[in-house]
Amino acid sequence: MKLASLKHGRDGRLVVVSRDLTRATDAFIVVPTLQQALDDWPRYAPALALLAEQLEIGSVPSFRFHEHACAAPLPRAYARLHASAWPGHRALLRQAEGAEAPATSDPGPLRHAVSDGFLGPRDPIPAADPAASLDLAAGLAAITRDVGQGADAAEAERAVCLVTLVAEVIRRDRLPADGLDLAGALAPGLAASFAPVAVTPDELAPSWRDGMMQRPLLVTRNGQKLGCPEAGSDLGHGLVDLVARAARHHPLGAGTLVSAGPVSNRGIDGGPGRPAAEGGVGYACLAEARAAEVLRTGWAKTPYLTAGDRIRIEAKDAAGHSLFGAIEHDVAG
Amino acid sequence: MKLASLKHGRDGRLVVVSRDLTRATDAFIVVPTLQQALDDWPRYAPALALLAEQLEIGSVPSFRFHEHACAAPLPRAYARLHASAWPGHRALLRQAEGAEAPATSDPGPLRHAVSDGFLGPRDPIPAADPAASLDLAAGLAAITRDVGQGADAAEAERAVCLVTLVAEVIRRDRLPADGLDLAGALAPGLAASFAPVAVTPDELAPSWRDGMMQRPLLVTRNGQKLGCPEAGSDLGHGLVDLVARAARHHPLGAGTLVSAGPVSNRGIDGGPGRPAAEGGVGYACLAEARAAEVLRTGWAKTPYLTAGDRIRIEAKDAAGHSLFGAIEHDVAG
Repeated sequence: MKLASLKHGRDGRLVVVSRDLTRATDAFIVVPTLQQALDDWPRYAPALALLAEQLEIGSVPSFRFHEHACAAPLPRAYARLHASAWPGHRALLRQAEGAEAPATSDPGPLRHAVSDGFLGPRDPIPAADPAASLDLAAGLAAITRDVGQGADAAEAERAVCLVTLVAEVIRRDRLPADGLDLAGALAPGLAASFAPVAVTPDELAPSWRDGMMQRPLLVTRNGQKLGCPEAGSDLGHGLVDLVARAARHHPLGAGTLVSAGPVSNRGIDGGPGRPAAEGGVGYACLAEARAAEVLRTGWAKTPYLTAGDRIRIEAKDAAGHSLFGAIEHDVAG
Repeated sequence: MKLASLKHGRDGRLVVVSRDLTRATDAFIVVPTLQQALDDWPRYAPALALLAEQLEIGSVPSFRFHEHACAAPLPRAYARLHASAWPGHRALLRQAEGAEAPATSDPGPLRHAVSDGFLGPRDPIPAADPAASLDLAAGLAAITRDVGQGADAAEAERAVCLVTLVAEVIRRDRLPADGLDLAGALAPGLAASFAPVAVTPDELAPSWRDGMMQRPLLVTRNGQKLGCPEAGSDLGHGLVDLVARAARHHPLGAGTLVSAGPVSNRGIDGGPGRPAAEGGVGYACLAEARAAEVLRTGWAKTPYLTAGDRIRIEAKDAAGHSLFGAIEHDVAG
């Protein structure tokens, strides 16, 4: 099933969304918010799934679904843990700084990241000082129910209730050059946004495998393709694997977000991938586009976000249908 | 006024507690949980304050208040930001490792820390592998309502709704030696607990000044004094100051916890304070006691937490009355 939270108060108004993202029906008769649904998922999920079936066959009242009316699926969360799951991203940023690429794909400990005040998927990003080197990094996130400490892979898989896209608003000027502290401290990870719709893993099949969505992320800037890196490739750790790692020393509470990004594919020679404009898969964040430019040409020509920019992030199934709806942020002037 | 959350479901049952911590009355007729109260504080705080007055004069039904029946005042929070506000702590840990003490009292960016699954103030701490170097660090925390980005000192002061004690469960084996990553990453900051009662700053007067509680923290281990460092002394940044810093680049949502610790006082020569057993003020965490021993005698003799240990943390007013009740954790065998 597909779920969304329409903008309403601090916690949104939960709706069930049709597979094709055109219609929705209120979930209020089952449970009013996604957090409350996650707090008792075994009780509410079957009733929500039934509502989703009824919506598909048109046997419940429904209304037109508008992505721009959405808040983040969880507008605020009790916990968010973040890791950089594509080791190529970190390697590239390090190499561009003239440092050694790390030999390991270990993402290190997951870091607590901004977990409230999430932007809606179509909210503008407040303009920042150009010196802030504002970036938007596209990745994926899992939304979990309770996960016991030391959960094994099977338990972690069962605990992933929903999957969605995430975009991190990052001030690169406040990060160490290698980007490893992504979302680790307050200042750099300014904010985050999520796709309008969160989707159960079974709904993603056959594009859900090895605990990760196996589809490319389509990232554009002002209508030009920045990249379409494949989420299932060059991956150090899938979402289910990250959930298990997050639960290694600490149980996870219902409604925990485990996020990973930016998606990053290597080039055919194992080095930086080529830009989309040259037929490569491109990049899921500006910092990586710049790092690849530094390594290939000696200087970064892709600018960081400036007022008036529009970034769009989406994932589509094999038939070309949007899976989660699109994150689309304008940078306010 | 003084508020507590009795153990009940995931978010507790809000009660108003008498000044002397002996009686309580249900806040349900006003608002059922502390998070909901903070979500609309200007609406609920006056009604809760009225209930507190009525409780003092005995004009509402009340029941005996038991600290052991409490959850953390906010059993789970949408955000927790943590800083090390007493620069002496970091300096001491660094010096004990043979490194230079940092010249600055800047706490650096506040870090996102464990924000859910808080232990109740009397819950046992699960035993850990002795190699984990388990420590408990005592400090203070502010609970805020919404704080706008760029809030000034006056706005930050108004936004601090409640103050309480915090104890961080830390695995020192997973920290860099200088301890600077305290609560920055998941693994080391295993868990946190809070005092049974959270108190409005006006209720702390005259011990609330310069945006910080001006009273010592009394920390004992198995009945022996570990320390009684003065929270208002040798302080880099008070709680209100930390709230303003946390809001510099990002608004804070209602129910944000801003925590600081461990409390740490310098000796009269500016160096490490003397142990409580030798008439000094002692320490608010085991790592600092050990660092001071290394600097004074060449080796650390205070062991980290072991099964059977009991740590108690409390703060009292000038007349000797407990302000927040006590955090008291037994380490499970």
